[in-house]
Parts: sequence; structure tokens; C-alpha cells
Amino acid sequence: MASSETIEPAAGVDGPTWVYDFADGSRGMRALLGGKGANVAEMTRLLGTGRIPAGFTITTSACVAFLGERPHAYPEGLSRQVDAAVARLEEAAGHRLGDPRDPLLVSVRSGAPESMPGMMDTVLNLGLGDRSVEGLAERTGNARFAWDSYRRLLQMYANVVHGVSGERLEAQIADVKRDCGAALDTDLDVAALRELARRFKALYREHTGEEFPQDPRVQLDGAIRAVFESWEGERAVHYRRIHGMPDDIGTAVNVQQMVFGNKGETSGSGVAFSRDEMTGAPEPSGDFLLNAQGEDVVSGMRNTQDLADLVRIMPAVHDELIGALRTLERHYGDMQDVEFTIEEGRLFLLQTRTAKRHAQAAVRFAVDAVAEGLLDRERALLTVDPSTLDALLHQTIDPAFGGAPIATGVAASPGAAKGAVVFTAHAAVEAAARGEAVVLMRPFTEADDVAGFHAARGIVTSEGGKASHAALVARGMGRPCVAGVASLDIDVEAGEVRLKATGEVIARAGDLIALDGSSGAIMTADVPLVDPPQNACFDTVLGWADELRRLGVRANADTAADAARARSFGAEGVGLCRTEHMFLEADRQPGMRALILAESDEQRAAAVARLLPVQQADFEALFDAMAGLPVTVRLLDPPLHEFLPGLTELEMQVERERAAGDAGLADTERLLERVKALHESNPMLGTRGSRLGILHPGIYEMQARAIFRAARTLRERGAEPPQVEVMLPLIAYEREIELMRALVERVADEEAFDRSELSIGTMIELPRACVIAEQIAGHADFFSFGTNDLTQTTIGFSRDDAEKALLGAYLDAEVFDRSPFETLDTPGVGRLVELGCEGGRRARPGLKLGICGEHGGDPDSIAFFHAAGLDYVSCSPFRVPVARVAAAQAVARELVAAEPSAASSAAGSAPIAAVSAAPSSAPSA
Amino acid sequence: MASSETIEPAAGVDGPTWVYDFADGSRGMRALLGGKGANVAEMTRLLGTGRIPAGFTITTSACVAFLGERPHAYPEGLSRQVDAAVARLEEAAGHRLGDPRDPLLVSVRSGAPESMPGMMDTVLNLGLGDRSVEGLAERTGNARFAWDSYRRLLQMYANVVHGVSGERLEAQIADVKRDCGAALDTDLDVAALRELARRFKALYREHTGEEFPQDPRVQLDGAIRAVFESWEGERAVHYRRIHGMPDDIGTAVNVQQMVFGNKGETSGSGVAFSRDEMTGAPEPSGDFLLNAQGEDVVSGMRNTQDLADLVRIMPAVHDELIGALRTLERHYGDMQDVEFTIEEGRLFLLQTRTAKRHAQAAVRFAVDAVAEGLLDRERALLTVDPSTLDALLHQTIDPAFGGAPIATGVAASPGAAKGAVVFTAHAAVEAAARGEAVVLMRPFTEADDVAGFHAARGIVTSEGGKASHAALVARGMGRPCVAGVASLDIDVEAGEVRLKATGEVIARAGDLIALDGSSGAIMTADVPLVDPPQNACFDTVLGWADELRRLGVRANADTAADAARARSFGAEGVGLCRTEHMFLEADRQPGMRALILAESDEQRAAAVARLLPVQQADFEALFDAMAGLPVTVRLLDPPLHEFLPGLTELEMQVERERAAGDAGLADTERLLERVKALHESNPMLGTRGSRLGILHPGIYEMQARAIFRAARTLRERGAEPPQVEVMLPLIAYEREIELMRALVERVADEEAFDRSELSIGTMIELPRACVIAEQIAGHADFFSFGTNDLTQTTIGFSRDDAEKALLGAYLDAEVFDRSPFETLDTPGVGRLVELGCEGGRRARPGLKLGICGEHGGDPDSIAFFHAAGLDYVSCSPFRVPVARVAAAQAVARELVAAEPSAASSAAGSAPIAAVSAAPSSAPSA
Repeated sequence: MASSETIEPAAGVDGPTWVYDFADGSRGMRALLGGKGANVAEMTRLLGTGRIPAGFTITTSACVAFLGERPHAYPEGLSRQVDAAVARLEEAAGHRLGDPRDPLLVSVRSGAPESMPGMMDTVLNLGLGDRSVEGLAERTGNARFAWDSYRRLLQMYANVVHGVSGERLEAQIADVKRDCGAALDTDLDVAALRELARRFKALYREHTGEEFPQDPRVQLDGAIRAVFESWEGERAVHYRRIHGMPDDIGTAVNVQQMVFGNKGETSGSGVAFSRDEMTGAPEPSGDFLLNAQGEDVVSGMRNTQDLADLVRIMPAVHDELIGALRTLERHYGDMQDVEFTIEEGRLFLLQTRTAKRHAQAAVRFAVDAVAEGLLDRERALLTVDPSTLDALLHQTIDPAFGGAPIATGVAASPGAAKGAVVFTAHAAVEAAARGEAVVLMRPFTEADDVAGFHAARGIVTSEGGKASHAALVARGMGRPCVAGVASLDIDVEAGEVRLKATGEVIARAGDLIALDGSSGAIMTADVPLVDPPQNACFDTVLGWADELRRLGVRANADTAADAARARSFGAEGVGLCRTEHMFLEADRQPGMRALILAESDEQRAAAVARLLPVQQADFEALFDAMAGLPVTVRLLDPPLHEFLPGLTELEMQVERERAAGDAGLADTERLLERVKALHESNPMLGTRGSRLGILHPGIYEMQARAIFRAARTLRERGAEPPQVEVMLPLIAYEREIELMRALVERVADEEAFDRSELSIGTMIELPRACVIAEQIAGHADFFSFGTNDLTQTTIGFSRDDAEKALLGAYLDAEVFDRSPFETLDTPGVGRLVELGCEGGRRARPGLKLGICGEHGGDPDSIAFFHAAGLDYVSCSPFRVPVARVAAAQAVARELVAAEPSAASSAAGSAPIAAVSAAPSSAPSA
Repeated sequence: MASSETIEPAAGVDGPTWVYDFADGSRGMRALLGGKGANVAEMTRLLGTGRIPAGFTITTSACVAFLGERPHAYPEGLSRQVDAAVARLEEAAGHRLGDPRDPLLVSVRSGAPESMPGMMDTVLNLGLGDRSVEGLAERTGNARFAWDSYRRLLQMYANVVHGVSGERLEAQIADVKRDCGAALDTDLDVAALRELARRFKALYREHTGEEFPQDPRVQLDGAIRAVFESWEGERAVHYRRIHGMPDDIGTAVNVQQMVFGNKGETSGSGVAFSRDEMTGAPEPSGDFLLNAQGEDVVSGMRNTQDLADLVRIMPAVHDELIGALRTLERHYGDMQDVEFTIEEGRLFLLQTRTAKRHAQAAVRFAVDAVAEGLLDRERALLTVDPSTLDALLHQTIDPAFGGAPIATGVAASPGAAKGAVVFTAHAAVEAAARGEAVVLMRPFTEADDVAGFHAARGIVTSEGGKASHAALVARGMGRPCVAGVASLDIDVEAGEVRLKATGEVIARAGDLIALDGSSGAIMTADVPLVDPPQNACFDTVLGWADELRRLGVRANADTAADAARARSFGAEGVGLCRTEHMFLEADRQPGMRALILAESDEQRAAAVARLLPVQQADFEALFDAMAGLPVTVRLLDPPLHEFLPGLTELEMQVERERAAGDAGLADTERLLERVKALHESNPMLGTRGSRLGILHPGIYEMQARAIFRAARTLRERGAEPPQVEVMLPLIAYEREIELMRALVERVADEEAFDRSELSIGTMIELPRACVIAEQIAGHADFFSFGTNDLTQTTIGFSRDDAEKALLGAYLDAEVFDRSPFETLDTPGVGRLVELGCEGGRRARPGLKLGICGEHGGDPDSIAFFHAAGLDYVSCSPFRVPVARVAAAQAVARELVAAEPSAASSAAGSAPIAAVSAAPSSAPSA
């Protein structure tokens, strides 16, 4: 076979190097060794071979070569190299694989360059057999440990390597437990474990037609082949496709010596953080258990000891651990979370990864890391997960409170709230007027309920998810919201909330309810709420972000209160004021209805005259709150029937009134006629946006007039007006924007508003607008991508409808892994956004480009908008700090990529460059 | 000013040539002389100066130069050249402009290279003044003619050149008529016409502040300037923008001697066709009137004489005219339609244009033209307007029948029908079962009504237009349909049809009604219908088309009957079988409902078992009709609630049953629950298409099974099955098609259907699918663009909703000039189709590409699909011949463009090449 070896140009006399000992690899060899292999090698390199259980990695190239053979087969040289690596491992560990008296045990794990689902699970304790299990029992003096290890190997091997169903295996455990009266797995004695091993072997034989292999080397080859094969498993293939990852990379295989923390009182297992993961305080924290394995620590079945106790019990081990934590943190340039095992007084580190941390810890670490000279500002900013920052702006449940929720739903809008239950927006408004704190509970919400959102402290729904109406409106206002609490029956008619499962009534109108929109918890207890503290570290991080980012950050705000809050969160203007919300307020709706139902020019004029001053007052307040900053006012967008009663409701009313001979019948019938005429089978694709402006110019004229008068009034009062930007919604054709722009300009002239101070632009929210952006840009001073509607039309998903069943089913079926309404669908919608940007800038190089959909507050989407060359994002007020940080991170990533090892702004000793994610996992016993 | 002249390089010593006499121009000078100028020059060149009233053209360059000056002004040399041209014209005509005794009169007309709306209207009789009008009266001995000519000049000049409103001018006429008791304009005597001239001059003075110019040269300059200015008029600018025409072309101005057919019994006016415009017979036909102007002929107020009579009255003039017609037809290579005037025995041709003709005449001309050696086949094909061909396939009202319609609506689906009025699909089905001929009349139609379409001879609606549900379904089935008869009140509840204006009942259920779907006419008379004759010329033309075209033509057909008809019309397969229509039939709906409402696997299986054989039988019949040809079966597409009763209907039923204590209440409530759960706010963007297949795989499995079993049954019977193509609707994501393809393949394997004979593809009907076509193509054997839905999502127009008010308003506002549901929106939707084609072919170069939206039968859209590289179009059966011809024309245009003067296939003497449209207009007096 010498000829095949000569094909590989880099190969030595033994052909390509398929196997690397941990001691010979490093972080830079991720493509060849996979993420796990490269990281365990890096730890070995950093901390020395003695601290990391020894082992070796079979390369991704070996996997590719294996899968390239027909039938699949080890490439030339691999078997020989595995033999050699096993021999080296045996030497280092001082045991032999398969030694009947003192067997070396190993774990086998997959490890692709990027982690992905569907890859083979871990096989532990590999190396045991019918004889060596007895040897292990004897050598450790712990027969239960030995047999438990063996039955675990049998179970995992049968399941993972040969596909015996997990349920069938678990059923055996249940059987044996029943037979010997054991309640828990840990109650099983040696005899029961022996019986279990026998049964697993029988199952193995039945399933494979062969005996369980007693030869550890055969076990090892089986596990290695299973890892290789899992690269082509269905889930992994789908995952790569969704994420645009190539198929010809392959996965590595990691073989590592097992260590045991359950060998007596000088052994133990634990987890440790390099700093406090809640506060960010610079002292390491953690938990451990003596004479225990790692899974005992995380299972929570035994009460763990604080890491500080270790200094007393095993001071040397403690110091060694602290030293290792510092080394790792310094090396990876981020807080680390480490799993460790102490085997008979000797410390082994099994895994290190970037620590998950609370927002408070995140900002503190970033600030401290720069002060300590550990990181420069760009890299420090990149350690903060912006999606957690919301938590620093809202009230929360006192962490000291330990009550359990009675139900849990979707964490739809962060923050905690409590109050008396109300079931209607009307009741919420009335109670709020009396100064009462209320929580609005509804099966789902609609446009009519928005007034209730303002009045309530929090919102709970039993239907819908993160993109439901309730969630969107609540996030926009910063109201805590838990949506889709499927276990609750919110019965508005009966005025009670019941548990679906039992029918038990948990609250009636007026009863206290509490919700945590950050966790999705619903409680009936009077939970203590705490305000978010002043946070100097957060302010520092935001200050850095503002210096660094190129994207502007504005807020979507419909009221002066929202605008003022947004400004306090750092918004640089209003990117979207939805004027329709103004007409849904109780005092506006009659005027709007009168306008829609007007049958003569006089009636129409009267209705306009009634609405104009109200609308003007709205704008005055909003403009005042945003003095000097840009404010984008979108003219009326939704179809008119949203301001009228529902069709079904009216038809039933007519029927009732007819039966009762009601005097109001004629009026109701006329209203019904109008509602029927305006009824649309697909309102999302109907007469709305600028189409309304073309069919019913009176409404847009009134709105434009109110805008210009409000600005003038402010100026006359001596107040600074904002930079007024009038936005025309739902433009698909050049002629539409031309007509509507002419209308707005005419009203501006009539109101003596200086045209040079007026900016007129459009939402780009239809695929056609993206495709013909060049033509539209000829009439637009700015584009604002309305990515909510653009997502709906591009994918053909009505958000309301998709929420009902489709999104969940699609996540399950792996059509996508995040809702396109949460994170921008970049290959589809994103491509159209890019086309829109390119076309717009081709026609008008200085065209201002923004985005005002929900995606404006989503960090991943913000990174895309940065790359697409937009000028600003606009998001709900509470997302403004998130967006500021995410926008800065987009720049920081560019800078770091350009200068991967340079420190640009940190003071003190040379900071360490470590931006690509720290290792996410490594072996644990 | 010598310096400015030297700038123009081609200019002679007098600077550029701004003015050309008709005798000096030709058809090839369209860019410089405009369409009208080039054509009148061509006629002059062909027939000699004596036959065409003399005149000259001011070039488009002069217009551009004029508009380039600030303020607008004649370019250097223009005034001098106009003087010279007028002098030459006076010489040729033998009169002088402004001669008080025998004035030369001229017309002034705009004429851009491409015609467009908004350009200046004609000014006639220019040259008259207060003195010369008396001279004209004296010289012609016809004072009424002279004064009528003068008042017309004053009226047109004031209106067209100076913008005096047409209404104010007409009001003067009405006043004067009232004062002298005249009923018609022609009743006005000389005194009244003098009075009118006085009033028009006063109005002119009031409006312009000046007297009407008596100097003809001043009149002429005013008219020329007005033509130039109209190039920048708002409507013309919009039109150019919509059609992507450049702004810097300018319009020419044509000045032509007036001739008069009303100078006595040796004068006259008429229109003539070079061949019979109804039958295509090779003899010229036409009408004329002695002592009359052209407008008298077309107004229909006097009975005209047949052209054949002219041979008796003025044989020389007749022969001259016939000769001119032959020359023109030969020259332009198409049937001509000519306006002529005889002035005192002398024939003048005023205009020649391509004759509008009946479909019968079109195919006869094409065949004769090739036989005569006049045209080659490609050019002959291009003389046929494919959109008229429908008429050759349907019954029509006997042309001898002269009855007037009682109402008129939108000509929504061609052909004539008559029958007894029914108001519901149910009644239609019952009556048809009894063998009665019925016409279904409804305010509008919905999916539920489709069974009634099959049963009825024709359909009439009072709402909706060409793209309404009724129109689409009727066209698909070839049922005559008149939609949107707004003057009728179709009162289903009362069972009567009333005229809205008067309330008069014109028909009750069972009364006879007739409709002509080609004209939109509704009649209550028992009109005689005639079958379309066998048509050898049509068959010949279709045969040529099939030889020439590259695009395949398939039909959209849901039933065996439709498929058989489509095949008889030349369809090469079924491009779209909409399986949902099969479930709407009365005997299927209960099974479909049972499937949707099933609450257990058993119920589901039972429902599937009930539907499967029915569906299989549907496919067997369809497949049999298309033996050997491809049949694309689209799996279920519409949302499930379309198969259930309406929400409002059910809610009212529940209310009624609750009030009455009805025993069925619980069932109705359960049904209501399910309908509520399936209810969608935007069903077009909801759970439909392949989304159903993912959520409810049982339906698609059943359908796939029925397809494969049907094919197998046919084969077992010894019949030839078709080439089965399974089409997955509404794909947006790669994973969707992957999952659904796997499902179909699995069922194929289960049914032992040979996969190598199976083609699986998708509709491309969402913008996202176009953008990520490359990914989708990895799993598709074919793409079929669903341009109906793609139009809806790209533009954000729900077809149903847009039909109500928006499309009309948008046509009025010139947002577009054709509904995007009739003719493909090429800049928007078309661009996405191109992206889809490019992406698909990038991934799979041999990918089969088709289109199955309504646009597949629209000639302009077919030209686009040809250019985009599609393989086939699929359209409703009755559009198949249209599509065959349109597809051939796309190739013919390419061939002719490549070889503009070569004859490729015609026999006999060298045929004449004349493909770019013949002149569309020329002056008339």
C-alpha cells in the first residue's frame, strides 16, 4: 500500500499523521483537531501534561479519508497510529488498556471544528470487560463503583455505537429496580448492577447478532467508527446546510484517560469560575463535593461545598486550582468556567469554557479586565453578551426570594411586575386611573388592547410567543410580559384564571398575580421586587460602545413618554413613530371612525377638524421630548377597518337588534355595510400605507399638517424642534412616492414650513421596493427598512398566523433555528435588504439608510445591518442599550480581525488577545 | 451668432437642419422626425407629393434645443427655416398663409418617436383670422363652413395652446345653442357661429390678457411652442417614467396643409381597409360620404356609402385609392386602414395605419400574405394579435343580431352564453343535472361556487374585475363570464336582479339571460348563438407557430374534461393541476372535512381511506387524457379552513342553536372551535402549501399515493400513463422541499413507483424562493413560477382586496397602466423571476423552468418568459392557442431583429420586410 501513501504530499514515511497526542496540539489546530481536541491540547500546553488527563486526537482528515472509502474504512496507517498512541497513553497513565487487574479506562468523544447537533454522544469507561471489571473492583476496593462503571459502558456503547434504543435500555433499569425494590439508580447494589450488565449484554447480542466485544481495542475501533459515521447523520447534515457549513470538513475523535473523583475522601469533583459569575467580583467562586463524580455536583442531589472550603481541606490542590483559573482566564482573555476532578489528591482539569454570567458580572468583568490590562476595550466589549443587558434596566424579583412559579410561559418582555388581575384593557385603564397596580391577563391581545398595556404593570397571555402582538407591544413599551402560558386557561367571560390540567382556579379579577418577563414565571405570591441599581460599570461599557460604533441608534417611540425614556437610554432620535397608535387611544377613536364613515365632504372636513388638534398635540409632546434630534413620523399605516368594530361582532349585533326590533338597527346596518366594504381577506396585503394616502388623501394631509404645525408651535414657544422626517409607508411603485411626496410638500408649503428643513423618505418593506430601490430613491431622502413586514412578504408568513402553530413546528422540523421575526433571515430577507441598499445608493450616494423593524434590537441582526452599510438602527426603547453595545461589537470584530494580536487602547501591561470564543467544552468524567 | 452655429458639427452654413419637408423624410428618420412625421414622409415618398397634403416636420432636435434654453426659446436658425418651409408649402399648395381672399390653412400636431399620452392635441384650421374667414367664405361659397372652421380654430387654440378649460368653452356653445334654439352643433347657423367666434375671442382675451393673434405666423409659433412644452407636461413625464423611456428625446412638430371633403359633391371623406377587416378576404372595403369631413364619417350621424359605390361615382379616384391601398399594404407588409379626403375631385390620403381586424381576418391575412409572397412566415405571424384569438374558439352572438345590452360589465372571459338565471352553485348543479342551460349570477364568487361554474353555461357578477375569482376560474374553464356589472343589483336573497338606477327587476330565477364575455354585454333577449367555424387558416397559423416557438405550452387543468379540451387546443401537457378543486366538489367535501376535523389517528386514517380512492379516480381520468405527456400535479395548496364553513356563519349558528336549545349545539360548537383554531388573519400568508404538508403529512401522503396508484392502474390496464411531475407548493426554505421531497419519494417507494420516472419540483411563488433559488434547486427537478402569488407577495397586493378599489384607483393615478395580475410586472416581479432562473440554473444547469400563473396566457408576459429562458408556459386551456402564437412571435421578433430585411421561408417573389409597427397615425382634416 506504499503507493497510496505517496499521494499525500506532506506525509512522512508512515503516511499522513492521523493522530496527535494532546501534548502535541494547540488552539491553532482547530481545523485538524476539532474544537474539543484543540482546546484540550491548549490546556495541556498551558498547564502541563500532569494536570490534564492524557489522551490523543484522531484528526478530521482521518474522518474525511474514512468517509471517502467505499465501503467506509480506516485510511492506510490510521490503525497503526492509533496503536502507537494507545501505547503512549498507557505509558503516561501507568495502566494498560484491558489489563485484567488494573485496566486503563478511556472516554471517546466527537469534536468537529464547529460544534453541531447530531454528532455522536460520549462513550465513557471504554476498556472494561467481564474480567477487568473484577480487577477494577479489587484494585479500588469498590465493587459497586466498578460494576456501575461497566453497566454504564454497556449502556452507552449499545446506544451510541449500535443504536439500541435508549428507551429499551432504560426499561431494563426500571425492571431491575422494581425487582430489587430500589427507588433510585443509586440504590442499586452490586448484585443488581451485575444483573443489569447481563441484561444489557443480552440486549446487545439480540440487536447486533454478536457478543459485546471484550477486547478494548475492538471497543475503541467501534467507537471511533461511530464518531466518523455520525458526521453524515441526518441532523448534522441539516444543521450544516442551515448554517451554510461545508460537508467536507469531518470531525475529529478524542480519546482520553478517565479519572475518578469517587475514589474516597482524597478524591472529589467540582466546578469553578475564575470570577464571581453573578457580580463579577474578581475572586474565583465555585462548588465541589468530596468522593463524588462530576455528575453528582451538577445533579444537585447532594449539598455541595463552597470552593472556599477547599483551602482548608486540600490547600495545595486549592492553590493549584486558583492558579490554573488565573492562567486560563489570562490566556483566553475571558472569564472561565472549569470542571475539575481530584483523584486521590491529584488535580485534573477536565474542561474550561467561557463562563456564562449575569449581565452585572459581564459589565464588571469588562471594566475590570481593561483596568487590569487584561484586555483592550474592543476585546473587553466583545466579552459582553448584549442580549442579557435588558436585565440591568428593569425591576427584578429579589434574588433572595425562593418561591416556585405556578406556571411558566414564554419570557416575552423582560422585567418583573405584580398587581391585581384585570381581564380587559378597559378595566386596566379604569384601575390605573384609580392608582391601582394591575396585571392584564388575556388569551391573546389585539390592537384594541394597547391602551391597557399603558395602564398595566405587566401583561400575561395564554397564547402566542415572542413575536405575538402582546410581546411586541410590551417590549416596545418596556412592560414586562409573559406570553403563551399554555398551562393556564384565561377565561375572560368567567373572570377567572384556571390551571388547564386540574381546572383549579388560581386567580379571579382583583387577585394578586406576579410575573417575571425575564424567566417566564407566573406567581401568585406577593413577590418582593427590586429596582435596577445605578450601574457605573454599565455606563462605562456604554460609553466605550458609543465611541466605537458606526451605526446610529434610534428608538421606536409613539408617545412622548416612550421618547423621553428612549432618550434617557441613549437613543439618538426616533426612527419610527407609528401614528396609528395615537388613534387607538380612547379619546381619538370616535374621531377616526367619523372620518372613515363620513359620507360627504362636510362630514369628512368636520372629522378632520376634530382630529387635527389632537394629532398636533401628540406631535408637540413627542417633538419636545426629542428636541434637536431626528424624529421619523410614519403616516398612517394600517387598513382602516382596524379602527372599526369587527365584522362578525357587527353581524351578530344586527341579527340581535333585528330580532329585538331595536331602534338603532338602521345605524348598525349602515356601519355593517361600511365594515363589509372595507373588509379585506388579507389585510396585510390590502389597502394600507401609502395606498390609503392615495385613496383617501385627507388623512395624510391632516397628519402632515399636524406635524408642521407642531414643529412651528414649538419654535414659536422658543423650544427647539426636532429634525422632522416624514415617512411614507408601504411604497411599492415609484409613482406612489412621487404622489405622496408631492402631497406632503404641498402641505409643508401651505403651512410655511421650510422645505430645506424637511426630510421625506419611505419605509422599504415590500420585496418590490427592494428590487426597484433605485427608482424609489429618486424621490426619497431616506430609506427605513421595515423588516417586520418585509419578512412577512418575502417569506409569505403572516406573523400572527405563523405564531399560532407554524413557527414552533418549523423550529422542530429544523426548517430554521430561530424565528425570522426575531433574528433577520439573512439569506432571504437580508439579501433583499442588500439589494435595496445597493439600488438606493446607486441612485443617491448619500441616501440615509435605517431599519425600524423588531430586528433593530437584535444583536445578530445588528451585525448584519452594520455590514450592509446602514446608517442607523431603530428599536424599542429598552433595546437601545443592547443595540449600542451590539453596534460597537460589529466594529470591534472588524478591528480585531484586522489586527488579531494588537492591543489598541488598554493601559498597563500588554493585554492578551483572545477574541475567538474560548473553548466551549472538553472532557469530563 | 456665428459662434453658436459652429458648435453643431453636422451643421451647414445655416446651422443644423431643424425642418424637413415631408418629401425629404422617410420611415427611417423616426428618431429625428417622430413617428407621425416619418410616416407621413414615407407615404409621400411612396405615393408622390400630390396624394398627401403637403407639409413639413420640425425635428425632435429642435424641441430638445428649445427646452435647453433658459427661458425656453427657439434655437438659432429655426425661425428662419420655418419661414422657408412655409414659403415652400405655400408654393406647393398654391395659397398663402393669411391671404385674406384665399388663405392656406394648416394643422399643427405633435409627433414623438414613440406615442405617449399628454402630448399636445391637434390644432386645425390654423391660418384663419377675422379677415381671411370672410375670404374663405367667399371663395368656397360656404359661409357656414368658413365660420365653423374659424370657431373651431379659436376653440382649439384657446384650449390647447393657452389652457383655457374645455368646459368653459363648451359652456359657450351650450349658451349659444340655447339662445338660438339649436339642438345640435350642426344646427348652428352662420350668425350663431359668428357669435360663438366673438365669445371665444373674448374668453381668449380674458384668459391671456391679449387679443387672439390675427397673424398666422404668430399663431403658428404659438402652436409650435405649445407642442414643445407639452413634452415636459406632467402626464408625458409620468408615462415616460413608467415605460422607462428617456427624457432627452423630444417631440417633433408636424405642420400640414388642410384639405376639405365638404366642398361640394365632388368632395368627400372616408375610411378604407386594404382587405376586409372582418373576414380577411383580399378585397379592399370601407365607407365614405360625399360632401363631408372625416368626423362625419366616424360619428355615424349620416348613413355612409360602401366603398364599392365609389367606382360608380368617381371611378378614377376609386382606382387611385385601391392602388394606393395595395402600395401601402405591400410597403408596410400588413393590412392598412386609411383615412382619405377627396377635395374637388382630388384624392388625398391623410393617414395610414395597421388595420385593427377581427381574429378571423388576422389569420386569413397571415396565410394569404405568405401565399402571395408578401411576407415570410415569421413576419406573417407577427401581424396576428394573439390576444384576439380566443374569439375563434368560443360560441359568439350571431353578428346579424342587433339587440342592445341592458347592462355592461367587464369582459372577463370570452364567448357568449345564455340560459336560465340561477343564484347559487347548488341550484346550478341541480338544474344542470336536469339538463337545463343556466347562467350563474352572483354578487361575487368564492371557492365554494366552483362546482356551479362547471354546471353553468356562463357566469355574471356585479363585483370584481378581470382578475376576480369569477374571472380567473371562468377563464380557466373556458366559461364565458361578465364580471363587475356595477349597474346591476344581484339580490340572491330576494332571488331577483335589479337595475340599480331604477330598481326595475330585469330577471328572476329561471328567467332567460344572455351574456357576451368578449364584449361585457348582458341581454335579456333570446340571442342567437353561433358556433365557431372550422378554421383552416387558424390551423395553418398555429402550425407555423409550433414550428417556430422555443417555449413549450402546457395547460392549467384540474379535470379530465379540461385536460382533454386543452389537448385539443394543442397543449403539450398539464403544467398545473390544482388538486384542491377536486375536494371542493360536493361528494368530496365531507371527506375532506372529516380529515381536517379528525381528533384521533383512527379518525384520520378513516378519512384518508375515504378520500384516497376518490382522489385516485380523479388522477386516473386526468392522466388518461394526457397519456404520454407531462402532468404536473400540485399537492394541496389552500389553507384548510377553506374546506370548512365560515367563522361568522358558524358563530351565528351557535348563537341561534343556543337560543333554541338545539341538540346539535355541542357539535356546532366543536366545529366552531376547530374553525377558530384554523382561522387566519392573512390566509394568503398562512398555513398553506407545503406548510400543510409539514404540519399534516397525512394529506400529502394520501395525494402522492393516489398519484402513484393512478399511474400504476393505467399501466396495468395497458394504457399509457403520463410523465408524472409532483409539484410542492409555497416553498420558501430549502429544508421544506427536502422534507416534502423525502415524503413523496418514500410514498413512491412504498407504491413501487419507479423513481427514475418521477419528477419532483416546486412552485416558485415567494420572493424568498427566488432569492435562494440556488439552494432550492438542489432538491428540485423543475421550477414552476407561480406568478399570481409571487405578484401578491412581491407587491404586497392581495388580489381579492386590490380588486375592490385599489387597482382602479391605481390605474387612474397612473401608478401602472396595466394590472400586474394581467401582465407581469417585469421590473419588480419579473426581476425576481430572473433571479430565480439564474439561481436555479446555477445549481442545476438543466433545471426545467416553467410558469403556471395567469400570466402564462398573456402575450406580453410570454415574451418576457421567452427572454428569461423558461422552458414552457402553462395557461388555461382556452389560452393555449394564444400562447402558442405569442411564443412563436417571441422567436420571430428575434429572427427579424437579427435579419431585418431577409426573407427566411416565404415562397414566390421576394416578400417585403415590415415588422416594426406600421404608422399609427397621420393627419386628418
